[in-house]
Amino acid sequence: MIAPVKVGVAGLGTVGAAVLKVLQQHADLLARRSGRRIVVDAVSARDRHKDRGVDLSAVRWYQDAAAMAADPEVDVVAELIGGADGIARTVCETAIAHGKHVVTANKALLAEQGAALVRQAEDAGVVLAYEAAVAGGIPIVKGVREGLAANGIASVFGILNGTCNYILTGMEETGREFSEMLAEAQKLGYAEADPTFDIDGIDAAHKLALLASLAFNGVVDFSTIHVEGIRHVSALDIHYAETLGFRIKLLALARLSPAGADLRVHPCMIPRTSPLASVHGVYNAVVAQGDSVGQVMMEGRGAGAGPTASAVVADLIDIVRGHRTPALGAPAAQLHRLVPLAIERRRGAYYLRLMVVDQPGVIAEIAACMRDNAISVESLLQRGRAPGEAVPVVIVTHDTEEAPMRRALDAIAAIDAVLEPPRLIRIETLAE
Amino acid sequence: MIAPVKVGVAGLGTVGAAVLKVLQQHADLLARRSGRRIVVDAVSARDRHKDRGVDLSAVRWYQDAAAMAADPEVDVVAELIGGADGIARTVCETAIAHGKHVVTANKALLAEQGAALVRQAEDAGVVLAYEAAVAGGIPIVKGVREGLAANGIASVFGILNGTCNYILTGMEETGREFSEMLAEAQKLGYAEADPTFDIDGIDAAHKLALLASLAFNGVVDFSTIHVEGIRHVSALDIHYAETLGFRIKLLALARLSPAGADLRVHPCMIPRTSPLASVHGVYNAVVAQGDSVGQVMMEGRGAGAGPTASAVVADLIDIVRGHRTPALGAPAAQLHRLVPLAIERRRGAYYLRLMVVDQPGVIAEIAACMRDNAISVESLLQRGRAPGEAVPVVIVTHDTEEAPMRRALDAIAAIDAVLEPPRLIRIETLAE
Repeated sequence: MIAPVKVGVAGLGTVGAAVLKVLQQHADLLARRSGRRIVVDAVSARDRHKDRGVDLSAVRWYQDAAAMAADPEVDVVAELIGGADGIARTVCETAIAHGKHVVTANKALLAEQGAALVRQAEDAGVVLAYEAAVAGGIPIVKGVREGLAANGIASVFGILNGTCNYILTGMEETGREFSEMLAEAQKLGYAEADPTFDIDGIDAAHKLALLASLAFNGVVDFSTIHVEGIRHVSALDIHYAETLGFRIKLLALARLSPAGADLRVHPCMIPRTSPLASVHGVYNAVVAQGDSVGQVMMEGRGAGAGPTASAVVADLIDIVRGHRTPALGAPAAQLHRLVPLAIERRRGAYYLRLMVVDQPGVIAEIAACMRDNAISVESLLQRGRAPGEAVPVVIVTHDTEEAPMRRALDAIAAIDAVLEPPRLIRIETLAE
Repeated sequence: MIAPVKVGVAGLGTVGAAVLKVLQQHADLLARRSGRRIVVDAVSARDRHKDRGVDLSAVRWYQDAAAMAADPEVDVVAELIGGADGIARTVCETAIAHGKHVVTANKALLAEQGAALVRQAEDAGVVLAYEAAVAGGIPIVKGVREGLAANGIASVFGILNGTCNYILTGMEETGREFSEMLAEAQKLGYAEADPTFDIDGIDAAHKLALLASLAFNGVVDFSTIHVEGIRHVSALDIHYAETLGFRIKLLALARLSPAGADLRVHPCMIPRTSPLASVHGVYNAVVAQGDSVGQVMMEGRGAGAGPTASAVVADLIDIVRGHRTPALGAPAAQLHRLVPLAIERRRGAYYLRLMVVDQPGVIAEIAACMRDNAISVESLLQRGRAPGEAVPVVIVTHDTEEAPMRRALDAIAAIDAVLEPPRLIRIETLAE
């Protein structure tokens, strides 16, 4: 029997513990599939005595994760600490410097510091694997980088944050407002106490940066991604979306065109008949559009201990099977820097929702702002009548560029009878 | 520069031509991704002079595909001829015997003769790749075998035949009968002149055999799969499905339990809210249920030149990248033979549709047949009244075993007032 592969696990939170469980419970199965036994040889975490529901008697314990990453006995390091900088980064760099393969679930680190790390791993001839960093248990990194490797990929987009999707789905099903659904998500453990990363779209943007790098074989400057979260989506907008035949989803979108790489995360109205519209609750889904294959969609659990451990262990199996794939789909030296396309260049339809004083002439003023910016209105809804009081007005535009749309928005916001900041939601048809 | 990888393509139908196109159009991109250039060095097809829209000036032409498969200049053979036996098999065996990797889209060959071929390839130390054989462009072979390799997989199921899904979707949308929709599918090229393989479920069963082998790391005896097609699905059943909150889909299902491997292809009623219910037209979709990851669904085009070429070329890239994965997920010697579970052991709910003479006592007789077999009825619909004439009666049962259900069906069919053979459609909830 060939000697087992020895894994060092840095970080024993719910994901780390789940990785240990999978490796223990399926030891024989995984050995059959990968050709060698995969054992956890060392772990590193803060509290040694916490009960994690896994047998740690046979593993060596490190207080210092970086020291573990340098341990000559360890073949592969699984970095499950998280965070864009600090110890997680040190662990990865140390492991690579010591010639060890690295498996990580750390989307922040890779999205913000990935290019350097990828190059370091390539120079050292080791694998830097990160299936768990994008869409949890869905094998989308493998799907895009290997499964669709024959395709020129023009776009990749999807629902990449389960917390936001849970909140939006709940708002739709119950009619509740964002803040109530967020509180429920927090109570159920679907949202953190500080939910900023999730609900402001940053987590989805991290994953998008990785997907775009893979799909376009390019380097993404994370700061160029346009990111909006879901805080401003109201029950009223959800209601109007339904009326108009749409659902509101937080989408992450990457499109490559000769004009540049259009990378953005924001709430979208999408047709109710679109496959992504049926992705409910904490599920994630990603659509990639290849020039031979057309649209391929992958859907599954985007977070949680089990799905994340599934992806981490799949990466370990790939390493043991001897698979060597360039981390971003092509060697680092052959990756081009993606030129960002500014959000002002976005072209498409828009949903605009205003609260206006119900008085003569308001609609004409609003319509004039649209006309002055050459924006063509597809429909305008003013429901209910309440003379002198606030009523919602909803406008759906034909396709236009974002720059004039923003100018129109500023002009509309300046109208006296417009009471709140106008709400703009982009409409994405997601067609091939 | 490393020497290019030389591919021999056996069969230049639409798929073969599309493979050549992809390799020519994306030559640089694929070289970046795979690390070597991939060139078609030789082709084999019947008619040399047919215009296929691709440049064949630089390739060597073989009349005899088997001779090409033995050509020492060729590194990898892509078998795109098809058929469970005959020349396709000879080409694969010859290539393997000459130490060449084989990429094939041939589901019939692999489902019926796969075990021997897999072992031959393994003994020869070459790759036998077949992503294109299952669900066209969807990277489901890779998804299950690699992406979900950390999971014990309890079930895998899906829509594996685009022709049937096109017909069923069309019946639902237009209210037309099966024969009309089949004629339309044939006119549009979605169904063959002889549609037997597709509409009788054999094609889906071939793909299911491969998926089950992969998911369960076992050998499937193809003849043990229970296969029913969609010929008997009527517009009336489609209508009742909608009334009951279901859609009718031809599903291929594989479930592993201690009792055995439950493998079957047949029309199913599935909840309209199920993700598979939203898979329309010629699309395919597969759901795999892993013990860590939960349900993962992959959806895309299951047939056609582009999607199939996408899968064939992805396999080529894997080979060039040096990936070596056991064809069925584990070495041939470690695959167990899957013990089939007879369809009579299937447990679940049933939809039963009868045409009966509208006269007193008929419902009582039918109900007695159910009671005598200890089958509990959830609902019974008799719509409309037409004394003395034929009316449909629909029964939905609670969960029961198929054996008593079949006995009840035989008894019901023998009632004088029951005019046509009863129609039975299994209800699958597809829940985790």
